Amino acid sequence: MSEFRLEKDLLGTKEVPKDAYYGIQTMRAVENFPITGYPPHKELIRAFGYVKKAAAMANSEVGVLNKKIAGAIIQAAEEVIEGKLHEHFIVDSIQGGAGTSFNMNANEVIANRAIEIMGGEKGNYLLVSPNTHVNMAQSTNDAFPTAIHIAVFNLSKGLIEALKELHQSLEKKTQEFDDVIKMGRTHLQDAVPIRLGQEFSAYGNVISRDITRIQQSVQHLGEVNMGATAVGTGLNAMPQYIKRVVEILAEITGLPLKNAKNLVDATQNTDAYTEVSSSLKILAINLSKMANDLRLMASGPRTGFNEINLPPRQPGSSIMPGKVNPVMAEVINQIAFQVIGNDHTISLASEAGQLELNVMEPVLVFNLLQSLSILQNGIRVFTQYLIDGITANVERCKQLVENSVGIVTAINPHVGYEIATQVAKEALTTGKPVREICLERGLLTEEELELILDTKEMTAPGIAGAQLILR
Amino acid sequence: MSEFRLEKDLLGTKEVPKDAYYGIQTMRAVENFPITGYPPHKELIRAFGYVKKAAAMANSEVGVLNKKIAGAIIQAAEEVIEGKLHEHFIVDSIQGGAGTSFNMNANEVIANRAIEIMGGEKGNYLLVSPNTHVNMAQSTNDAFPTAIHIAVFNLSKGLIEALKELHQSLEKKTQEFDDVIKMGRTHLQDAVPIRLGQEFSAYGNVISRDITRIQQSVQHLGEVNMGATAVGTGLNAMPQYIKRVVEILAEITGLPLKNAKNLVDATQNTDAYTEVSSSLKILAINLSKMANDLRLMASGPRTGFNEINLPPRQPGSSIMPGKVNPVMAEVINQIAFQVIGNDHTISLASEAGQLELNVMEPVLVFNLLQSLSILQNGIRVFTQYLIDGITANVERCKQLVENSVGIVTAINPHVGYEIATQVAKEALTTGKPVREICLERGLLTEEELELILDTKEMTAPGIAGAQLILR
Amino acid sequence: MSEFRLEKDLLGTKEVPKDAYYGIQTMRAVENFPITGYPPHKELIRAFGYVKKAAAMANSEVGVLNKKIAGAIIQAAEEVIEGKLHEHFIVDSIQGGAGTSFNMNANEVIANRAIEIMGGEKGNYLLVSPNTHVNMAQSTNDAFPTAIHIAVFNLSKGLIEALKELHQSLEKKTQEFDDVIKMGRTHLQDAVPIRLGQEFSAYGNVISRDITRIQQSVQHLGEVNMGATAVGTGLNAMPQYIKRVVEILAEITGLPLKNAKNLVDATQNTDAYTEVSSSLKILAINLSKMANDLRLMASGPRTGFNEINLPPRQPGSSIMPGKVNPVMAEVINQIAFQVIGNDHTISLASEAGQLELNVMEPVLVFNLLQSLSILQNGIRVFTQYLIDGITANVERCKQLVENSVGIVTAINPHVGYEIATQVAKEALTTGKPVREICLERGLLTEEELELILDTKEMTAPGIAGAQLILR
Amino acid sequence: MSEFRLEKDLLGTKEVPKDAYYGIQTMRAVENFPITGYPPHKELIRAFGYVKKAAAMANSEVGVLNKKIAGAIIQAAEEVIEGKLHEHFIVDSIQGGAGTSFNMNANEVIANRAIEIMGGEKGNYLLVSPNTHVNMAQSTNDAFPTAIHIAVFNLSKGLIEALKELHQSLEKKTQEFDDVIKMGRTHLQDAVPIRLGQEFSAYGNVISRDITRIQQSVQHLGEVNMGATAVGTGLNAMPQYIKRVVEILAEITGLPLKNAKNLVDATQNTDAYTEVSSSLKILAINLSKMANDLRLMASGPRTGFNEINLPPRQPGSSIMPGKVNPVMAEVINQIAFQVIGNDHTISLASEAGQLELNVMEPVLVFNLLQSLSILQNGIRVFTQYLIDGITANVERCKQLVENSVGIVTAINPHVGYEIATQVAKEALTTGKPVREICLERGLLTEEELELILDTKEMTAPGIAGAQLILR
Repeated sequence: MSEFRLEKDLLGTKEVPKDAYYGIQTMRAVENFPITGYPPHKELIRAFGYVKKAAAMANSEVGVLNKKIAGAIIQAAEEVIEGKLHEHFIVDSIQGGAGTSFNMNANEVIANRAIEIMGGEKGNYLLVSPNTHVNMAQSTNDAFPTAIHIAVFNLSKGLIEALKELHQSLEKKTQEFDDVIKMGRTHLQDAVPIRLGQEFSAYGNVISRDITRIQQSVQHLGEVNMGATAVGTGLNAMPQYIKRVVEILAEITGLPLKNAKNLVDATQNTDAYTEVSSSLKILAINLSKMANDLRLMASGPRTGFNEINLPPRQPGSSIMPGKVNPVMAEVINQIAFQVIGNDHTISLASEAGQLELNVMEPVLVFNLLQSLSILQNGIRVFTQYLIDGITANVERCKQLVENSVGIVTAINPHVGYEIATQVAKEALTTGKPVREICLERGLLTEEELELILDTKEMTAPGIAGAQLILR
Repeated sequence: MSEFRLEKDLLGTKEVPKDAYYGIQTMRAVENFPITGYPPHKELIRAFGYVKKAAAMANSEVGVLNKKIAGAIIQAAEEVIEGKLHEHFIVDSIQGGAGTSFNMNANEVIANRAIEIMGGEKGNYLLVSPNTHVNMAQSTNDAFPTAIHIAVFNLSKGLIEALKELHQSLEKKTQEFDDVIKMGRTHLQDAVPIRLGQEFSAYGNVISRDITRIQQSVQHLGEVNMGATAVGTGLNAMPQYIKRVVEILAEITGLPLKNAKNLVDATQNTDAYTEVSSSLKILAINLSKMANDLRLMASGPRTGFNEINLPPRQPGSSIMPGKVNPVMAEVINQIAFQVIGNDHTISLASEAGQLELNVMEPVLVFNLLQSLSILQNGIRVFTQYLIDGITANVERCKQLVENSVGIVTAINPHVGYEIATQVAKEALTTGKPVREICLERGLLTEEELELILDTKEMTAPGIAGAQLILR
Repeated sequence: MSEFRLEKDLLGTKEVPKDAYYGIQTMRAVENFPITGYPPHKELIRAFGYVKKAAAMANSEVGVLNKKIAGAIIQAAEEVIEGKLHEHFIVDSIQGGAGTSFNMNANEVIANRAIEIMGGEKGNYLLVSPNTHVNMAQSTNDAFPTAIHIAVFNLSKGLIEALKELHQSLEKKTQEFDDVIKMGRTHLQDAVPIRLGQEFSAYGNVISRDITRIQQSVQHLGEVNMGATAVGTGLNAMPQYIKRVVEILAEITGLPLKNAKNLVDATQNTDAYTEVSSSLKILAINLSKMANDLRLMASGPRTGFNEINLPPRQPGSSIMPGKVNPVMAEVINQIAFQVIGNDHTISLASEAGQLELNVMEPVLVFNLLQSLSILQNGIRVFTQYLIDGITANVERCKQLVENSVGIVTAINPHVGYEIATQVAKEALTTGKPVREICLERGLLTEEELELILDTKEMTAPGIAGAQLILR
Repeated sequence: MSEFRLEKDLLGTKEVPKDAYYGIQTMRAVENFPITGYPPHKELIRAFGYVKKAAAMANSEVGVLNKKIAGAIIQAAEEVIEGKLHEHFIVDSIQGGAGTSFNMNANEVIANRAIEIMGGEKGNYLLVSPNTHVNMAQSTNDAFPTAIHIAVFNLSKGLIEALKELHQSLEKKTQEFDDVIKMGRTHLQDAVPIRLGQEFSAYGNVISRDITRIQQSVQHLGEVNMGATAVGTGLNAMPQYIKRVVEILAEITGLPLKNAKNLVDATQNTDAYTEVSSSLKILAINLSKMANDLRLMASGPRTGFNEINLPPRQPGSSIMPGKVNPVMAEVINQIAFQVIGNDHTISLASEAGQLELNVMEPVLVFNLLQSLSILQNGIRVFTQYLIDGITANVERCKQLVENSVGIVTAINPHVGYEIATQVAKEALTTGKPVREICLERGLLTEEELELILDTKEMTAPGIAGAQLILR
């Protein structure tokens, strides 16, 4: 007995493995696009499940789809959402055709499963047709973008959660390190004192800004073009259907979805994605800067800054015994580079839209979903394995401040920039403490210097010893 | 008599042209950074005027700056705002030092002008010192970012205006072309009918989204770090001063400025700029897509789409007589590429921040201000010289629709996708009209086809001839 | 009985699945880096096999590695090369630690397999130690880059082959279309006639340039830093070993490998990779331009240029029956965007090297190997499924030329640009043929026009009817 | 008397300032493209001089251009080369029209100057026509790219020179610092000893590779498409002319120019530029990494690495007295970011070519010439003001090595990685020297340790104390 069934489409016939839920068009796509070897992202597959379920429900409601067929489609779509049929989604993540192959893969899998549910044999599309029934009142051009929106929404939730955990961890460190006075550096050169807690509060603050930025950009995905079919004009979609399908989608996904105001626009433009990607890129930049700082502050232990300790996570070297490297920070840098590069690909794809459609969406969504996933994955381990375990070398930090010349800045308001410059110059050349030089030169008394050179006070707004000036 | 005066700083002495308002540190910067040949952007110079004026006012108010000196500084700063001293701002747009050379150029010009106002001779810094007085309670690290924020705000106003004009022009065309039925294309392949007005409404809609996006991103620049001096801790800035200087700045600039909540964060992170740049990049992508569409639709006139006419702006060729090219669209593409490249530079600069400061701000701000300027400039001529003058080739558009096969989509809901496919195939092979084939095959009656193949109706939501199905 | 064995390292102990060839350090990496879910590229795994084999051979030769242990390591490494142990390479493609986890994964798998070969039990590192024996005289910092070089070399071979096939296919089309005269277009506007074969010869020529460029850039990978261990100084590697290990590697891989002249440089700089990536980026740009052209020329069929036909590969639409889209060109565009984005990530990673090492190599190599793979994969199907099957619409091309005004350029040398401009203007306004206007205006005789307006002659260098001028 | 003359073109008439050498088409371009405010790069203007001179010479030689007119054009073109007419080149650097406005600006300036030379009045184009005579047998599509090639060639010479000076300076430092033993760092963590001279030799080596790479990429610009006019087919250019014009160009410019083998290809593809830009990008990446290293090594002076001193170039801070920043390194980073961003713009422009032409060349060449200029400018000051003056803190470097644990690597081959790990662990925890622990544990004798822990020997290939193993 043959292990194949014969299927037919516009271009001819093709053998399909008998047990496969996918059909001829999926097979053509597999043949045409052996590019990355990566199947569709799981969240994208699930999102197609939601889209097909909602369409069947709406079509049934408005009376154009037979209830029994609708029922079978809905059940099959639910199985897709639950992840039961994922292995039948086999088209490549990078593909020509604006996502038609994703959409047809979904249509075929759901059609064949629905046929089974109705008691038929796979491939008997007279019972349930992938195009006429599962794809009813849809085209790739509205079903695929709508699925992308849902997938991005769902993935962004995990990312936001991960960011909130990171933020919390940074806040904890802000408290923990509030008393650790250390040297601030600008241009990698000694500047003026700062508290380690202040540095972590800055990290926390920038992350909270990232959270807001990402949340806002994702909100703009609320507008979907479901129902406007091929070019956004709504041909072949009943107005009641257009309204209902999105209401149903919002309900079954729990997402704040609504009909786009201008459906032609929503079908051809992809700026909603580039906006999300931009917000991820900015997050990546901020994370990379933070990772760089941590690697700098932890540099050493003997020949670097050595102000903080990162928790050891693995032996650092295959040849240098005892070496431990800041691997959890390094992986964040690399994730950041990947996300920034992905944003570039997304920009290129977005710019390449033409007239009624952007056919480059597959590569766009591949990169966008990857960015969302690797950021979430990376941030979770970054928080847990790195930030949570950072400790401060309080004594070392203190020594560096006391040994520095930068504190001369505090005498500025008292003696003027020009004289302060001479003091600094002498301190740097001779190695003498700033305090001593001020005394020797008769610039300030010991009591005044006590007031002015208080390093803790230097880390808060104000002119140290302002009372001396204002008196 | 010598044409130079001698000035002195930490590193030694240097001759300065006698009439120059700038001083020794500006001269060092000119020597060190002969990079692009581009002086600071005019809006950045003006912004420094505002910053220095506000600082002098606030320092005077809180009692640390002598009223007479303050008065002279304020007057000099106003002259900077008015553009009277721009030619004395001579440091290069790309420079090391985190903008110290910009700041010192401003400090020196204002100090020397203030000295003159007070009746002294340029270079007599005992009267007014660039550092001690003009830069009082400031560092480059708060004065420069604050100036950037002001410059970006002010430049964004012009851009928003230009975008609103473009939007209005697109809306006009939306009305004007509302009746022009043409073929919609996906994948550059014939799809289904659309109205030219719908296409322009999509362009208008995406621009209105860009306006909102840019406005929102610029709002985030409202938080400035003025007063937190070198590392954001506020050392050498009185708390009352920190509050007042920003209030005054808001007042004299008319901008919604306020103190950043976390001043350490605000001093070291540059995501507020990357966010603005991202929104400009997205605008650039959208504009480029629109320009590409217009070039496509205007392609020909004899061997292209030839659906619309762009107003001729200049002879197109030095060798091909009579040729007219879509130059105003092409320049928009190029501006877009520049802005996208600039965004890349900005991202790199932003990622390179270290610890308490991002020293790469000069190249960042150079690119950001350039993007804002060239977008505004380009959009103004794009609107006036291109969009405003577009006309439609109504007859040509109509013929293309009538000649197409894509309208077969409308019979889909009536005969099913599989049979419609056969009709399409026959139409493509034989050249026969879809209507004729449907009749020959007895699929639909003439009356039914009249209802279903109405191209105007095809451009609005609905199943053409839905009553036939639902009856 | 337990299914785990206990392993130990610098940081403590950990349970390892009893049957696993990898060990504790691999497990730590898996825990630390759950980022992309993508295991190392197969060619990278194989390359590690070569590296470890060569090191064992060289160490054995120079007398520091016991022959029996060396033999077992060599055999195990060969199994890696043959692909027998790939499923034990489980560390993520994006990871911190400069590739230490890749290297240790290889060391552990080979050590445990070697132990087995020697009759021991997995985990008994007294027999064969991953660090002391398999990694002998190596560090990640020379072993990993050397493996990358080998992997890139090997992948580039397939890419070059694919490019040669594409080149050949384009050459064939150049011949086939040599007689097809069509309208040349600049600015998407009608220009002057050209032959379709000339266009394909240009495509072929640019591809042959890409082949040379990629080959040259890959050649620079011939210099490897094997033997210079941790920082390029060669500490712990005997000079004879350094020489021999590379000679052996060259021999067993068949690649033109040699010792880098400056090993410190070769250990810390990654420009050899960015150079390869740049050449891939340029290829991507060229391919994308070609794909765009093909999509334009095939646009229609009824409402576009319709000059060529692309072979249908799959039904184009889930809603529009009969539609066929240029999917094989679209996938090339998307691969190009991915490669350009990857190049961006690679540039970022390359710039992030610090002092003696670039720890960002994992993300760099992930992107580089992906670019090589997807280009090869995409080009193969592009050639086979698209280029090979292109046909020309000869009649349509001819009509467009004859209907055009651009041929007026040929009368330029005879009547001057200014008069030719008037002719063109009249032709465009009235629709009259250029020939007719010239006659009416008495500019040229019918015989002269016959000579001058020969469209075939217009596609080769020369002034059509030059004899008229020079006589 | 009027200060204007009236000129006329395809689109109508326009007033031109009486004294202007440019004409109506230049004026239209100025009106159409008020984008950046930057006029064409000086080297591009000069290059147009060469192109127009060579064309006039060749046209005269092949007998299609009147000798007297040719003579006047040649003289005018020479004045352009000499820089005498630069202020009349007023079109914007970013412009639509594929460079037609650059070309017509050149044609008009040269025509009007030639008219003057012949005794006529500006604007009397019957004497010398910008199109018919100056642009004879040319179009923008061959004249502009050819001019770009010449400009890039000429600019690259200065860059190569600057790079050679940098290389020489680095070589000098390599010698000077050959004896300075310091700690090598990987992952910013203490690794094994290295000599400062070795680090500088690596910098020198990478620069010499950059020199070769840039030289090679520029060589590919030798092929020019001069003579193939509008679409590369050579219409309106006599074969003898095509040959001669390039021979003459090669002669008068002294550059290795020759006719492109495939002129259609050479007219539409821009990969020769992207290749040059890629080589500049790689240089930028290498320079940025070097600048980062220098900033790290010079960090401090009190709270950083403080291994080297950079020459002070300007006071570092407007508020922190005595501060000196690594401004010459920072400006190199920023130039690098600009060049990398420019490369991005160039890639986008390159990808946007369509069919017979790439109309985006203006923005491409703007960025390419800028990259060449700012790299040259920056490298000259980087060498002179930074590299030349670097000094080493020999004692500090030595202390850091002696204080480190990384030297434990050298005992690896003697005691095995596992035991060495225990030694390292103890050293890190207790602060005891490695040497002491080895003795205490009885691992090695004092004489053996003397041999093995020689830090100088550690910086060259070999197993320190190898004789102990091999005996």
